[in-house]
Amino acid sequence: MNKKIMTGIKSTGIPHIGNILSVIIPIKKIIKEKKKKKFFILIADLHSITNYKNNIILKNNIYKTAAVLLSFLNIKKYKNIFIYRQSNIKQINELFWFLNCFYSFNRIKLSHVYKDYIKKKKKINIGMINYPILMAADILLYKINKIIIGKDQIQHIEITRKIAKIINKKIRKKLFIIPKYIIKYNNIIPGIDGKKMSKSNNNIINIFENKNILEKQIMNIKTNNESIYSMSYNKIKNTILFKIYKIIINNNKEELINIKEKIKNKKIGFFTIKKMLYKYILFFYSKQRKKFLFFINNKNIINKILNKKLNKLIKIAKKNIFIIKNKLGLNI
Amino acid sequence: MNKKIMTGIKSTGIPHIGNILSVIIPIKKIIKEKKKKKFFILIADLHSITNYKNNIILKNNIYKTAAVLLSFLNIKKYKNIFIYRQSNIKQINELFWFLNCFYSFNRIKLSHVYKDYIKKKKKINIGMINYPILMAADILLYKINKIIIGKDQIQHIEITRKIAKIINKKIRKKLFIIPKYIIKYNNIIPGIDGKKMSKSNNNIINIFENKNILEKQIMNIKTNNESIYSMSYNKIKNTILFKIYKIIINNNKEELINIKEKIKNKKIGFFTIKKMLYKYILFFYSKQRKKFLFFINNKNIINKILNKKLNKLIKIAKKNIFIIKNKLGLNI
Repeated sequence: MNKKIMTGIKSTGIPHIGNILSVIIPIKKIIKEKKKKKFFILIADLHSITNYKNNIILKNNIYKTAAVLLSFLNIKKYKNIFIYRQSNIKQINELFWFLNCFYSFNRIKLSHVYKDYIKKKKKINIGMINYPILMAADILLYKINKIIIGKDQIQHIEITRKIAKIINKKIRKKLFIIPKYIIKYNNIIPGIDGKKMSKSNNNIINIFENKNILEKQIMNIKTNNESIYSMSYNKIKNTILFKIYKIIINNNKEELINIKEKIKNKKIGFFTIKKMLYKYILFFYSKQRKKFLFFINNKNIINKILNKKLNKLIKIAKKNIFIIKNKLGLNI
Repeated sequence: MNKKIMTGIKSTGIPHIGNILSVIIPIKKIIKEKKKKKFFILIADLHSITNYKNNIILKNNIYKTAAVLLSFLNIKKYKNIFIYRQSNIKQINELFWFLNCFYSFNRIKLSHVYKDYIKKKKKINIGMINYPILMAADILLYKINKIIIGKDQIQHIEITRKIAKIINKKIRKKLFIIPKYIIKYNNIIPGIDGKKMSKSNNNIINIFENKNILEKQIMNIKTNNESIYSMSYNKIKNTILFKIYKIIINNNKEELINIKEKIKNKKIGFFTIKKMLYKYILFFYSKQRKKFLFFINNKNIINKILNKKLNKLIKIAKKNIFIIKNKLGLNI
């Protein structure tokens, strides 16, 4: 079956290792396996406006996100991948308003985002609350069957499913496909301070950074005051550093056996493990790091790639929104 | 100066006498006086989705609203009038999301609409809360200088002005024009039961209804049990019927003197006044009633008229949204 698979990344800068492991690497694998499916990979630049700083940052973040995606995904090799910017598809905005009119405000108040803001008494804009509805528009417009997400996005997909069902029921038609989600990566990725890794926690490891900064990020991983040589292996396994190490080598068994042995034989301390991790990243992601640098220095090529299949995508979007507007009664 | 003037009507059915007196007749006058200005007359069909019933009702309400506007406004005579449907201008939807990201949720909670819903514990959808932001997008997209509104819309324009100022400040550019509002009609129009006239109160007088229904609406205007002959003129002046009469004849002094004399001379009772009001409407709005019927029976002509200047409007919208996206950093 010619199913449609989607994933999306909010363009808030260079996607960190969490995004890469939970979304980009899984979709890369699925693309290789399932050549008959269509893949919609969204650069969510409209979502990034909820935390607007200025035009330069917004624009650079779009390029950074695109460059990371293109460094992992061989878009030339596969005809059936669409990498596109949300702001290029006006039909998402059209659908967004329609969805606004069918989802109850009481229900959106139950979302994690909303609860979190209320709890922390943060100043929020309407876009921050409405974020899941825009995400629903991203998905429902292209009749997506499956969405690859990180664990933290489950609720958003539930909202998407709910809206789709509400409208299908209201208009007595199977207008929208009820999408399912796929979680390919279950680990919560700790940041260098042990809290959940996120840009807002300022504790990320960014594998695309220049060597100096990357080394600094890794050297700053919080370690115990205790010497590694007096610790049991089980205790070492629970250190932030070891957890990050294990996550970054991402099922590379050989590497895992290698480090285990060295630790058990008391051949290496925390400092050496950090150095090893740094070298591992440089080696293991060297191809992506090179490609990333190439794209970031050739933004016109990013533009060309993003524009190449855009007309086809817009055509699908126009067709789908026409049907939606028709069913609602908006085509007179 | 070539200023831009806007007004809008939510397409929820035939606009009632309140809409006609506060918005349609005033703009008709201004169009006649100020031929150098541009007039944007919006049929707010996107707004009407917040209270969605079904596709047939939605579509018919668009036609009814258009037919009333066209029955009053001689669009052929004036090149500078644009009558258009909101859902035909995707750029409104694009701008709507941007505005979502710059207006604080705490602020929108201060709006009448929001407070009203909370007070009445109504079930509301997100669109109902977000309504003023969509209105802001309608206005700011076309760089409108003045908006003709009814009194109840003042707060919405204040929100529009606020958003425009916030974004201008944030991006350090005079991107948006801060619009002003004009209120040409200050009366609150009572319905046939004495409460504020509105469709939701089910107490309207609809001058475009067929004769039987119109007559019934007028005959149902609540009158006192007391006989008119035992009432003082001052007391009569305060009856619902007299108030409605005075409003509908809309500054027609001759007619006002005529009825005053008859009342003072005790020549007429409530029943006769109602009959007079009914005849007055049939006579005074006969041209509009005929035109309305013509348009409603020739929907293809409505379509033609609405489509005629649409390309020009879309061209302006595209140009303006391009500039906005550019300033935000979305054009890569």
